[in-house]
Amino acid sequence: MQVSELGEFGLIARLTQNLEGRSDVVLAAGDDAAVLDFGGDTLLVATVDAQVEGRHFLPGVASPEDIGHKALAVNLSDVAAMGAEPLWALVSLVLRPSLDVAFLDGIYSGLRSLATRHGVAIVGGNVAASDGPLVVDITVLGRAQRGAVLTRSGGRPGDILLITGTLGLAAAGLVLATRDANIDVSNAVRIAARQALVTPSPRLAEGTALAKAGMVTAMLDVSDGLAADVGHLCDASGVDVLIEAARIPIDPTVVAVAGATGRDPLTLALTGGEDYQLAFSVRPDALEQALAAVRGVGGTAAQIGTLTDAGSGRKLLLPDGSVVDLPAGSWDHLR
Amino acid sequence: MQVSELGEFGLIARLTQNLEGRSDVVLAAGDDAAVLDFGGDTLLVATVDAQVEGRHFLPGVASPEDIGHKALAVNLSDVAAMGAEPLWALVSLVLRPSLDVAFLDGIYSGLRSLATRHGVAIVGGNVAASDGPLVVDITVLGRAQRGAVLTRSGGRPGDILLITGTLGLAAAGLVLATRDANIDVSNAVRIAARQALVTPSPRLAEGTALAKAGMVTAMLDVSDGLAADVGHLCDASGVDVLIEAARIPIDPTVVAVAGATGRDPLTLALTGGEDYQLAFSVRPDALEQALAAVRGVGGTAAQIGTLTDAGSGRKLLLPDGSVVDLPAGSWDHLR
Repeated sequence: MQVSELGEFGLIARLTQNLEGRSDVVLAAGDDAAVLDFGGDTLLVATVDAQVEGRHFLPGVASPEDIGHKALAVNLSDVAAMGAEPLWALVSLVLRPSLDVAFLDGIYSGLRSLATRHGVAIVGGNVAASDGPLVVDITVLGRAQRGAVLTRSGGRPGDILLITGTLGLAAAGLVLATRDANIDVSNAVRIAARQALVTPSPRLAEGTALAKAGMVTAMLDVSDGLAADVGHLCDASGVDVLIEAARIPIDPTVVAVAGATGRDPLTLALTGGEDYQLAFSVRPDALEQALAAVRGVGGTAAQIGTLTDAGSGRKLLLPDGSVVDLPAGSWDHLR
Repeated sequence: MQVSELGEFGLIARLTQNLEGRSDVVLAAGDDAAVLDFGGDTLLVATVDAQVEGRHFLPGVASPEDIGHKALAVNLSDVAAMGAEPLWALVSLVLRPSLDVAFLDGIYSGLRSLATRHGVAIVGGNVAASDGPLVVDITVLGRAQRGAVLTRSGGRPGDILLITGTLGLAAAGLVLATRDANIDVSNAVRIAARQALVTPSPRLAEGTALAKAGMVTAMLDVSDGLAADVGHLCDASGVDVLIEAARIPIDPTVVAVAGATGRDPLTLALTGGEDYQLAFSVRPDALEQALAAVRGVGGTAAQIGTLTDAGSGRKLLLPDGSVVDLPAGSWDHLR
């Protein structure tokens, strides 16, 4: 059997089943980051994510600085999703010996710029040769307060589902980057969409503010697309969900790109992926407090649905009042 | 300029110069692992190392189980070199979607077997698709006692240089694996050499015993070859070295393979690499104590030379009494 038949999530489930544990492992594979007890007042969080040339980035679309930025950003987003604060990064490069050093300088420049912005120190790494595509594989370590780690598994029926920021911008950026340049959109639209795609901003301030406020029942970051990632939250929490299409915050830029290319903005927002926003659930009586916590750090959040009893199905309420299944089409890197 | 012109160590120096720090970073890039202060009684060590298909392993030579074993072993060896104890591992895979799942099962089997042997929990990881060679990139986190972290930089002139185990076996294994099968050596020799190459044993017990005993001034693991790695210890400590060829512990298997292939066993031992033994220095009055610490955990160690004043050069005393320069030929993955 080939890996592609199993798919990304099938393979991960297979490789991580029945792993030997340790008593100091608070949370292993299956969430946005591992949570580890190293003693002391706080918990250690650890996550790793690789960006691969030709798969996650195209040298013609992303600049070296963009590639470095994004390779770190996707990991910081995982730390944000735990309500944790990033501290340190290890950078592992797999590269062709013929690669231009200036290209790597650019990657490190983008990487260091984002690291500095969030107070993250690059503390080590590795360089290995390969005949294949460039791989930038980054491990980020961070810290979470004991009792305030936000996982995917605490959602309960009746909880309100929220999302930070807006959705679909990176998907719009990918549409613009991979179709010919004649799409009729303004320069401002083009720039905003490209920026979301190549230099996403991890929602660290929102994540730690929500962890501190203490009313979040479950949280994850949206990397595979809202529908798929809310599905992951439902799987882990043992619940289902009803999302209200009219409440999903879709950026006007997404509407412009969708209009110019004959696409549905809602589909881009639900299945586009790479938003790196935080989806989270709160008890109904804590809604205002959650919104205030996000506003308090200069962010935005929107109520987009409700967690429902397991067995209710994962549903989407359309503006016309009809209810349909949430689209299943999630991005699977291995299929 | 291409990466190959800079070489592995030139590139690492370039990428890690003037990195922004944090006050909780005890030791960043430049040693076998980063050392980090997470609060609590002990220090956190973190290291990452990738094994790349076609470069670090050949599917025809190493079994999937071997590949998994070695991918973890090289990281555990870095932890051992700090005198630290490994706790947790993150496994990042970059693979072709057409890869056989059974091959990955084998890799995980080898990896988990070695992890279990050393009490290491696999706590997470990542899976990414690629059109290129398989990459198994592992991050290992561990713990070291405060004040007992063994770095490369504490060696002083007059210190005695020691090495655990024997040298050259993995190099002999590589000779047998990459030359035709008609080399006239016994099956026992073939098996011992192959085993050293594909399933090295990290010297964790020796590392922690030496850290606990407290007389080691500098330590690292031998991955690039004794001559090169002792050179790294000298660079970091600001000293030079005189190694006595007659004292270098060369396995009889290495002598057999060298004899059958017209090679010099001493050259294999000095420059072959991938030994994953520990090279370390101690004050002269602590020699017996160091040997006893290693014996106490069932290991062996041999005195092989002396650290000398900077400017004396890195020298090799041959059995005939002549003194020559240590061979410079180190393995550089990027050249």
